[in-house]
Amino acid sequence: MSTTAVPPSPVLSLSLLNAADEDAFVALLDGVYEHSPWIARRAFAARPADGFASLAALKHALASVVREAALDEQFGLIRAHPELAGKAMVAKTLTAESTGEQRAAGLTQCTPEEFARLQQLNADYNARFGWPFILAVRGPRGEGLTRPQIIDTFARRLNAHPDIERAECLRNVHRIAEIRLNDKFGVEPRLGNQVWDWAESLARFSDPGFAENGQLTVLYLTQAHRAVAAQLADWMRECGFDEVGIDAVGNVVGVYHGEDHGQPGEAPRLLTGSHYDTVRNGGKYDGRLGILVPMACVRELHRQGRRLKHGLEVVGFSEEEGQRYKATFLGSSALVGRFDPAWLDQADADGVVLRDLMRDAGLPATMDAIQALRRDPARYLGFVEVHIEQGPVLNELDLPLGIVTSINGSLRYVGEVRGLASHAGTTPMGRRRDAAAAVAELILYVEERAGAVPEVVGTVGQLQVPNGSINVIPGRCRFSLDLRATTDAARDALDADVRARLAEICERRGLSFTLERTEAAAAAPSDAHWQSRWERAVGVLGLPVHRMPSGAGHDAMKLHQALPQAMLFQRGLNLGISHNPLEAISNDDTELCVRAFQALLDEL
Amino acid sequence: MSTTAVPPSPVLSLSLLNAADEDAFVALLDGVYEHSPWIARRAFAARPADGFASLAALKHALASVVREAALDEQFGLIRAHPELAGKAMVAKTLTAESTGEQRAAGLTQCTPEEFARLQQLNADYNARFGWPFILAVRGPRGEGLTRPQIIDTFARRLNAHPDIERAECLRNVHRIAEIRLNDKFGVEPRLGNQVWDWAESLARFSDPGFAENGQLTVLYLTQAHRAVAAQLADWMRECGFDEVGIDAVGNVVGVYHGEDHGQPGEAPRLLTGSHYDTVRNGGKYDGRLGILVPMACVRELHRQGRRLKHGLEVVGFSEEEGQRYKATFLGSSALVGRFDPAWLDQADADGVVLRDLMRDAGLPATMDAIQALRRDPARYLGFVEVHIEQGPVLNELDLPLGIVTSINGSLRYVGEVRGLASHAGTTPMGRRRDAAAAVAELILYVEERAGAVPEVVGTVGQLQVPNGSINVIPGRCRFSLDLRATTDAARDALDADVRARLAEICERRGLSFTLERTEAAAAAPSDAHWQSRWERAVGVLGLPVHRMPSGAGHDAMKLHQALPQAMLFQRGLNLGISHNPLEAISNDDTELCVRAFQALLDEL
Repeated sequence: MSTTAVPPSPVLSLSLLNAADEDAFVALLDGVYEHSPWIARRAFAARPADGFASLAALKHALASVVREAALDEQFGLIRAHPELAGKAMVAKTLTAESTGEQRAAGLTQCTPEEFARLQQLNADYNARFGWPFILAVRGPRGEGLTRPQIIDTFARRLNAHPDIERAECLRNVHRIAEIRLNDKFGVEPRLGNQVWDWAESLARFSDPGFAENGQLTVLYLTQAHRAVAAQLADWMRECGFDEVGIDAVGNVVGVYHGEDHGQPGEAPRLLTGSHYDTVRNGGKYDGRLGILVPMACVRELHRQGRRLKHGLEVVGFSEEEGQRYKATFLGSSALVGRFDPAWLDQADADGVVLRDLMRDAGLPATMDAIQALRRDPARYLGFVEVHIEQGPVLNELDLPLGIVTSINGSLRYVGEVRGLASHAGTTPMGRRRDAAAAVAELILYVEERAGAVPEVVGTVGQLQVPNGSINVIPGRCRFSLDLRATTDAARDALDADVRARLAEICERRGLSFTLERTEAAAAAPSDAHWQSRWERAVGVLGLPVHRMPSGAGHDAMKLHQALPQAMLFQRGLNLGISHNPLEAISNDDTELCVRAFQALLDEL
Repeated sequence: MSTTAVPPSPVLSLSLLNAADEDAFVALLDGVYEHSPWIARRAFAARPADGFASLAALKHALASVVREAALDEQFGLIRAHPELAGKAMVAKTLTAESTGEQRAAGLTQCTPEEFARLQQLNADYNARFGWPFILAVRGPRGEGLTRPQIIDTFARRLNAHPDIERAECLRNVHRIAEIRLNDKFGVEPRLGNQVWDWAESLARFSDPGFAENGQLTVLYLTQAHRAVAAQLADWMRECGFDEVGIDAVGNVVGVYHGEDHGQPGEAPRLLTGSHYDTVRNGGKYDGRLGILVPMACVRELHRQGRRLKHGLEVVGFSEEEGQRYKATFLGSSALVGRFDPAWLDQADADGVVLRDLMRDAGLPATMDAIQALRRDPARYLGFVEVHIEQGPVLNELDLPLGIVTSINGSLRYVGEVRGLASHAGTTPMGRRRDAAAAVAELILYVEERAGAVPEVVGTVGQLQVPNGSINVIPGRCRFSLDLRATTDAARDALDADVRARLAEICERRGLSFTLERTEAAAAAPSDAHWQSRWERAVGVLGLPVHRMPSGAGHDAMKLHQALPQAMLFQRGLNLGISHNPLEAISNDDTELCVRAFQALLDEL
């Protein structure tokens, strides 16, 4: 992987590093990991025969050394770091890097209140965990976190479980190392920064009632939603898309023509995109990343004056989250001819009927116009989608990218077990009809059964004994059930086993139950050819190919009904949290994501 | 056991029955159980060498035959009964007994609406269970249920689990048989009726806001509460108590002097009683039974002009349930000198301070007056208390009475397990921090651990994933824990094991938890001598002696701090439900309870 930025003062290159012997290799990487030369030494021992293929490959190798190290070595690495805004720093006796990094974050200009707060947090954190708090203060964009951001992160992580917090510290160590390596190599993730900045800029639009609280909420066809669409369209034009428009359901559509555009037998286009609506109080990258990454690719193509053999059509889908109306995938449904006419008559919580809302937004709001959005599969190569993972897997494996093998099929239920509410003191154990104990058995069975099969998950997310009393045996217990699998067969096998077990538990315990299915979605396995293209694109970056299912639904699930599809996942920071303001990505990961998309396009 | 009523037309006596050969025995009991001579035949085979000691012993023997019969025999017995208000009855082709009983309940004078409703219930019931609905329409007082009562019971039982409903049908069969036997023997439970009628009459007093809904609620020192006290005092005077008064905390105290009253070295008194306050929307017998049963004994003694060697002091405790103030056992605490002066300053939910409330009620509201209520243990033999079981044990064993071995010690906690809320679709099973799954493990451990030791119980009554979502792994799960045992040692061992397991579960799963103890009560084992006296008193009635712990707390738990104590439990109908309007007792059981108390007194 080459870098595009003009290096300010490169002191290191891959060729230099790959040519070095062990001691030289370790010396060249000195200071990347704080006082821990063993990391570079082991990475050297494990280097590929022909050297590291890319800076990303080197970063991954170093992180892998730490991930596979003994626990005491990991703690040693953590403890090698100075306390954040600690006394040592104030006394200016820190290592240059750390002081410089903390100074860059403004931590040397704390107010007395902020400094006192940090000192208290340091004390509390040390008392709880016994190691110093590690935070990559230059942050996911590499430009430095604000002091309030640092203090908030500190306070939040203080409540984590020690195992989780140790892993989070190590990930921050890797992020610090990544930024130091970027400096040493004189590289800058310019494409990643572009996408990151676009996402940040888009987040300035939020619905009233949420915006005031600093929350990001963009529901279908609100003013904020329309402003996002207009902004995306503007940016697409600036990027050099040949055609840009907002369609009859509010999708923002940009087309970058292929080299044979307008000629007879024009080559089919590649369709890509994701959604720009959000959940309430959501994150900045869920959906939007999948619009912005291909936009960055088109921007580069246009900048270089390049045309591909195939046209590229990028769609910012207007609705995927199902937050305002009961219909979900409003945007992508229209493209596969599955927009249900009945949806137009639906009212939101405020009584606003969808048809009226669309008209107010200047959309035609007729089924004719919506049906005209249906894409002819013959004119498309397929559909690819980039998305933030929304889960912890890549984050835990120190992997920036993952290849989706299938979007899971799912079944959802709400249920209730009914027993007999009786006195907790006077009813002997053998004479109870405890509804909650039955659900407890179910929860553990779901956990065991789903855990026994790869790429199957089962969750009881809602659980309640209605009006439960401390001294009354639960007579009722309500629960939800969410079952997902990479294939419909695996999903249905899980479903049959779980339902049979529930029946068995209730029969054995002399209880009754109800179980109402609230959702069923078929699995959408990735198209083998498109999945391999993503795998090759990730391989080109020098990164390991990690295949994984998508547990969440995505627009690709809808497009699957008409076109071959495959998705690429980018790592989410903060334990992969999503549908939450803490959702985060790094500029370096995003750079790799754009480059993977470029590699995919280059291969077509 | 002899009966006191003048028999209207006795056709049967114990001596006749005990002298009969098998065929004669079966013939004499013909019609007691519907078309099921096998029950009498087996009871004959199992009769004691010297015959049945009492009618109660015969009833118990017959019920035991059915309880031990094969399932198909039990169903045969149930199916031998005609449908309630069925077509057959309307066509007047029923057996005389059944038609007569149903006529007595007014079922032959149904309105067309009631008849239609019963027909629908019959159809629904048959569809659900496949057998006819059995209800002893003459009810717990033997005088007949009202048509609305019958319809309500029918509708309620329609929702029961089949196992529970089958057992409930058999218990109704036994109640029908009991009433038929009473008729055949020409006996009437006069003492039981007296107590039953007193309890019914007391229930006319209920607090405003509840009374209007037909609910029974009598909180400390409300108008209804004071009316109950005044009524009890009046009845005590009518019964022939020598001293009757309402004390400084509202206890109603009646003393029936012993034969040496007023003489030097007067024999110590026996103290007995229970509480007359109720929970909100409570039952008619919880507490009150323990006041009314000894009142009936004194009434009989006085009627017969008898004095016992020892005086009998009956206390209607004014407060036990802890419903209005945070203090519980206000009444009995005063008798053992444990009335906390701080209680006087407590305010109820409406801001009414206890001291002011007592003054308004005409009580002195001074600690001097309250401390003067403390009983000198040297002047008392001990404390005995009769109470409705408030549990299912006696009901399931077809036993009218049980002897309490210990009032359980208890510990209560509220807790919360904290994990990590994450996406149910995207978080693999092995990477979850599911708070609810941990609590599920705890629930099943509590069930298993408590079930492994006799007379220990553990309950998770409250259970909730706060703001749980169907597609989010529970990040938090709240629960309560109620642990009880017959001894403090058993309670503490259970407690230690449960808390250790919770810690182990959370450690293993990488979760944290909080656990706050909200209550701790020491166990109150029955005094061995007083327990044996109850055992002999029950034995005198020809009934099996069944020993059992009390899972619930009672006034005896307080008196335990100053006097030897032991309790007698009477069976609760309706699966033993309590703190509920469905709480019920039969007149026949109550008759046995009064007779047991008489036997206990006779032995002193």
